[in-house]
Amino acid sequence: MKLLRVGTAGAERPALLDAEGTLRDLSGLVEDVDGALLADDVALGRVRAAAEAGALPVLDAAGLRIGPPVARIGKIVCIGLNYHDHARETGAEPPSEPVVFFKAPDTVVGPHDTVLVPRGSVKTDWEVELAVVIGRTARYLASAEEGLAHVAGYTVAHDVSEREFQIERGGTWDKGKNCETFNPLGPWLVTADEVADPQRLPLRLWVNGELKQDGTTAEQIFPVGEVVRYVSHFMTLYPGDVINTGTPAGVAMGQPEPKPYLRSGDVVELEIEGLGRQRQELKDA
Amino acid sequence: MKLLRVGTAGAERPALLDAEGTLRDLSGLVEDVDGALLADDVALGRVRAAAEAGALPVLDAAGLRIGPPVARIGKIVCIGLNYHDHARETGAEPPSEPVVFFKAPDTVVGPHDTVLVPRGSVKTDWEVELAVVIGRTARYLASAEEGLAHVAGYTVAHDVSEREFQIERGGTWDKGKNCETFNPLGPWLVTADEVADPQRLPLRLWVNGELKQDGTTAEQIFPVGEVVRYVSHFMTLYPGDVINTGTPAGVAMGQPEPKPYLRSGDVVELEIEGLGRQRQELKDA
Repeated sequence: MKLLRVGTAGAERPALLDAEGTLRDLSGLVEDVDGALLADDVALGRVRAAAEAGALPVLDAAGLRIGPPVARIGKIVCIGLNYHDHARETGAEPPSEPVVFFKAPDTVVGPHDTVLVPRGSVKTDWEVELAVVIGRTARYLASAEEGLAHVAGYTVAHDVSEREFQIERGGTWDKGKNCETFNPLGPWLVTADEVADPQRLPLRLWVNGELKQDGTTAEQIFPVGEVVRYVSHFMTLYPGDVINTGTPAGVAMGQPEPKPYLRSGDVVELEIEGLGRQRQELKDA
Repeated sequence: MKLLRVGTAGAERPALLDAEGTLRDLSGLVEDVDGALLADDVALGRVRAAAEAGALPVLDAAGLRIGPPVARIGKIVCIGLNYHDHARETGAEPPSEPVVFFKAPDTVVGPHDTVLVPRGSVKTDWEVELAVVIGRTARYLASAEEGLAHVAGYTVAHDVSEREFQIERGGTWDKGKNCETFNPLGPWLVTADEVADPQRLPLRLWVNGELKQDGTTAEQIFPVGEVVRYVSHFMTLYPGDVINTGTPAGVAMGQPEPKPYLRSGDVVELEIEGLGRQRQELKDA
């Protein structure tokens, strides 16, 4: 299933994109798309049955904003340097174990919302990422297979990053990862049963129409199941938590000087095959 | 005012500790102690008036668990190496600007709840900290005075830390700061009007009755108002967000070998003058 949330920011309603591409209203059936729903197999089964029976009301998609596909995200765990090609372009050694940092859930916006260049920023960068949404509480998991079994579904994340704040301001990476609007998410949450192999997903990102990132999750150093297993030994993952699993090569930081960092007026588009497409215009904060 | 939340975990009710030390029920007046209440001067004024009039029902404190004093925390921003004496004991240069990392809100427990030593941990450490709770949305603030004006109140935080996970596991500090139960918070939120000077607060911590940390917020490299101002340039702070402002000298990591890291059965007590006292027993996860 493709689950999503539509409407004005903060007042989104739950919806479903059916197999024919028709937008359907879920608000008669579930309260929202959140951790509680994703952990509830009975409620998800009801949604699936109603969708298959064609019993869900059609929503008029015209002019409707798409919000982030998950409400009340508890935490966003991010994996750094998780693609062989991206580690090479940044000049970093491939990490021997996953690099972990955080984005606050309040950085999340819809997939087509405006992204703000922070005041004083000269190094705002892009990163297309496969986002994993947790469906079951994950604590000290024993294997990557168990890790995968705790995933509710997948979506697209834009892990917007300010490189000066991240690297040159004397702290941990979090400082350059948490500016407001820095995590567009969506358009849909595709449930795990519809993603045959999360390690064979092409990811692409364009800036002003020019292809900048053209990678595949096959390049991930630590695959999704292993990431979930690993993280579960350092913290407990709860339903509705999100993991941004890293970005492939092609970010601005990896380009020759003058590096093409983002500015107000730029347009970023990104997509993961099967998971949909985002488009953001940049503006000054 | 001293605001708190009492009851079983996940089902706490709002309460107030009055000037005579009597516990009063707030559940008839406000829904909870959270960002919405802390941003609402009218509702806070109603609570204050009812408290002063002695109009709040008395709660029987006997056997009542104290929960974290703020519900629905959006994010917890932590400041590293923010005390001159603590920077010295870790062998680090005093930072030229604040070091920022995160704890996930799901690490928060009540001030007397059990703290779990993570599986595989051999370096679980203590850190008493002054926690700042945000009362107004803070974004690109111009001065430390403005920073202070965005603070709703203060409480005690125990920033439990696993040093091997934090420092030796190839990532950012977040990996050693987010194990479950790693952020006891409370007992009370003391509103900012009752804290005459947040830079003159003695902080102390004992392990098994032995005094380990005995500091003062006068040793902070970046005082509270400056921390709020600084952070507001990298991320937006919202009502109900928490900032843990760093720890003074005396942590296990700073002791001679063999360093006395925490184990199951240890008891940690901590207090900040005027903000109350915590006590946790350690158990294995």
